[in-house]
Amino acid sequence: MAPFVPGNFDTDVAVIGGGIVGLGIAWEAQRSGRSVTVIDPAPATGATFAAAGMLAPVSELHYQEEDLLELTLASAALWPDFIAPLMAPGLPDTGFSTTPTLVLGADAADRRALADLRDVQLEHGLDVEVLSIREARAAEPLVAPNISAAFRIAADHQVDPRGTAAALRTRLAEVAAARGQDVDVFIGQEAAGLLWDQGPAQAGEGPAQAGDGAGGVARARRVAGVVLADGREIRAREVVVANGLGAPGLAGLPAGLKLPLRPVHGDILRLRVPEHLKPLATNTIRGLVRGLPVYIVPRNDGTVVIGATSREDGNPGVSAGGVHQLLRDAAVLLPAVAELELLECTARARPGTPDNAPLLGRVAGSDGRDIPGLIIATGFFRHGVLLTAIAATVCRQLLGGITDLAWERFRPDRFSPTLHPAPAGPSEQEKP
Amino acid sequence: MAPFVPGNFDTDVAVIGGGIVGLGIAWEAQRSGRSVTVIDPAPATGATFAAAGMLAPVSELHYQEEDLLELTLASAALWPDFIAPLMAPGLPDTGFSTTPTLVLGADAADRRALADLRDVQLEHGLDVEVLSIREARAAEPLVAPNISAAFRIAADHQVDPRGTAAALRTRLAEVAAARGQDVDVFIGQEAAGLLWDQGPAQAGEGPAQAGDGAGGVARARRVAGVVLADGREIRAREVVVANGLGAPGLAGLPAGLKLPLRPVHGDILRLRVPEHLKPLATNTIRGLVRGLPVYIVPRNDGTVVIGATSREDGNPGVSAGGVHQLLRDAAVLLPAVAELELLECTARARPGTPDNAPLLGRVAGSDGRDIPGLIIATGFFRHGVLLTAIAATVCRQLLGGITDLAWERFRPDRFSPTLHPAPAGPSEQEKP
Repeated sequence: MAPFVPGNFDTDVAVIGGGIVGLGIAWEAQRSGRSVTVIDPAPATGATFAAAGMLAPVSELHYQEEDLLELTLASAALWPDFIAPLMAPGLPDTGFSTTPTLVLGADAADRRALADLRDVQLEHGLDVEVLSIREARAAEPLVAPNISAAFRIAADHQVDPRGTAAALRTRLAEVAAARGQDVDVFIGQEAAGLLWDQGPAQAGEGPAQAGDGAGGVARARRVAGVVLADGREIRAREVVVANGLGAPGLAGLPAGLKLPLRPVHGDILRLRVPEHLKPLATNTIRGLVRGLPVYIVPRNDGTVVIGATSREDGNPGVSAGGVHQLLRDAAVLLPAVAELELLECTARARPGTPDNAPLLGRVAGSDGRDIPGLIIATGFFRHGVLLTAIAATVCRQLLGGITDLAWERFRPDRFSPTLHPAPAGPSEQEKP
Repeated sequence: MAPFVPGNFDTDVAVIGGGIVGLGIAWEAQRSGRSVTVIDPAPATGATFAAAGMLAPVSELHYQEEDLLELTLASAALWPDFIAPLMAPGLPDTGFSTTPTLVLGADAADRRALADLRDVQLEHGLDVEVLSIREARAAEPLVAPNISAAFRIAADHQVDPRGTAAALRTRLAEVAAARGQDVDVFIGQEAAGLLWDQGPAQAGEGPAQAGDGAGGVARARRVAGVVLADGREIRAREVVVANGLGAPGLAGLPAGLKLPLRPVHGDILRLRVPEHLKPLATNTIRGLVRGLPVYIVPRNDGTVVIGATSREDGNPGVSAGGVHQLLRDAAVLLPAVAELELLECTARARPGTPDNAPLLGRVAGSDGRDIPGLIIATGFFRHGVLLTAIAATVCRQLLGGITDLAWERFRPDRFSPTLHPAPAGPSEQEKP
């Protein structure tokens, strides 16, 4: 392996994973002047392909997940600026929309559960307006008359993840071409692992696995690129691991780093609204139907998305019971759902973590100092689309040597008992 | 246009429509020594693609459809001989299976309706065995314990329509190649209309529409082939119109012939049984669940088919309400359905007729004599797969100059008040 030579790189930033998070990170890095390369055999076909795209920090607030609220609110606040340059003529439609979200309850128990949740939301200073059923039906005439409760959340918006991913890919390619970037902006194959560069010998540092192509285990000290599935090496100043559930499978992850991701499978439906029912809804509709969550997200193109189940049954395919539940419960809130055309049933896995919060940031080596050249951004669970904006911002800051201490609690090494990051400070940061 | 010259043909039999009925007719004609050409831009992608493939004359018996029973029973009796040569090594799996059908009722009203239907079935000499719920669950352990009624119908079997169509296509091509047939056995484009040959001038005879490429309207007297969408003409001794709902759209249909077909849309599901639930069922399961029919057909490959709705709402796409109903009702009979993987939701239209019986046979010209060169075989409604065997047999007989008087009541001109077929007899028949 060649010794580490500053400047001897194919690209400034290699992003492993071309879902919406990876694309968003790559794009923010590109906007900051860096060359970027996204490595993914099938970009935007994983959880991004399934996601409904709700930007909904308020209605997504779950008990026991208040720690996450600060992050989701911060990301929601970033979305308008993040998406603005992507809403340009000639780019795919991002579907970004600031229409409110209506939250509906089906029966008395659902009403009580939503009222309790509203208490928590109000405690956190969030705006949740109580509506009468009459008011809810004035806003959405096709809502069933026999629902038990309705709330309006003005701050919860939506985006089309497929459209946004397509706009990001288009823009990334355009900018790379305009700048005459040498290296491909998209590499359509799997990343096999991390490429390390040797540095001064240092016991216990370096990749976890021998024989991963990095070699010189004891003396490796910085991540310097990506080894592709075909053996080719892409040398990069910084590598961002953003391939969701694929992250723990990369060879050459730092010794001692645990990325405790688990697949949380979800079923989601796409349906076409026939002409005589348009628009089925103008607000995003979320509901609790006999204790089960369901949402109906109207799209600009006359389709709606109905989702989503959460299954930890290990079955990656579409669940018949899940589809049944979604159609049944959505029709309780909006009976006209039965009259829609079912276009697509999709199942994908979300990368869940033990605390339902992402793994985002740099990771410590055995000396407690952050390993140069490596950023992790995975474990976004149900919030990948919403958190794309903050993930992109955090990564841009890290690339520029800035650590926002507010997000240190989401460090990817927090589940790695043998790693003890030193207190963060400017002197600890890599300056590109 | 060239005058009619006997022997001046590209093919003996041109079949318009490559669904299972058209393919079955072509194959039976080919087996009788004739050259055949099937014209379809996308064979076996219409109703055949959706069909579950039940060969179930007994459980398919509906009130008011007793006239059809003789035909469906005759076809069921023909199926074993029809399918036998297709169950050969190297051919796609036809899925032909003689396992019985279990008929289940969900609630008390369903039990009463099925008991009433059994009375009708017994009146017609059909064998329907009453089972206790215990016996039903001994036969199918995953049947819900709270069903209301169970019956076993030993005579109702099944076939895989996609596999059978694939086997037919393969065999048709193999035999045509082995015989060195000049004309393509499959022509992958739409048929635009019928080609007529002039004969002695005869007032009022001939195709219904001028300008259909046939010309010589007043003097045309026999169908002599097919005009393709690209204008090419395939000259054939006999043309069989077997393109389902497309039949009335053909140019050059005989004057006065009404083919009153309407689309009856149906939704149907395909699901994969996970290993721990195999086999979900070994019998075909049919049920009545709160008055709605549903069936669950197990396939050899570890999948099941759940169907089917009947909608006359004009919507060709998959109905969300239909899918919901099927999943809900199937799970009432077999709760484990909720644990299956949903592979496919399909909607197709069946060609319905005013009396729910097919349009099968020759049609009269204005002189009351059958128009030479033309056979119609459409309008098979819910029974296309079951009736394929008898349709193929009837057409082979007609090609050979034999009319089975038993089936004259299904003549395609029975809804055409201006056409009055003369009494059938050997002297009326075309001899090839």
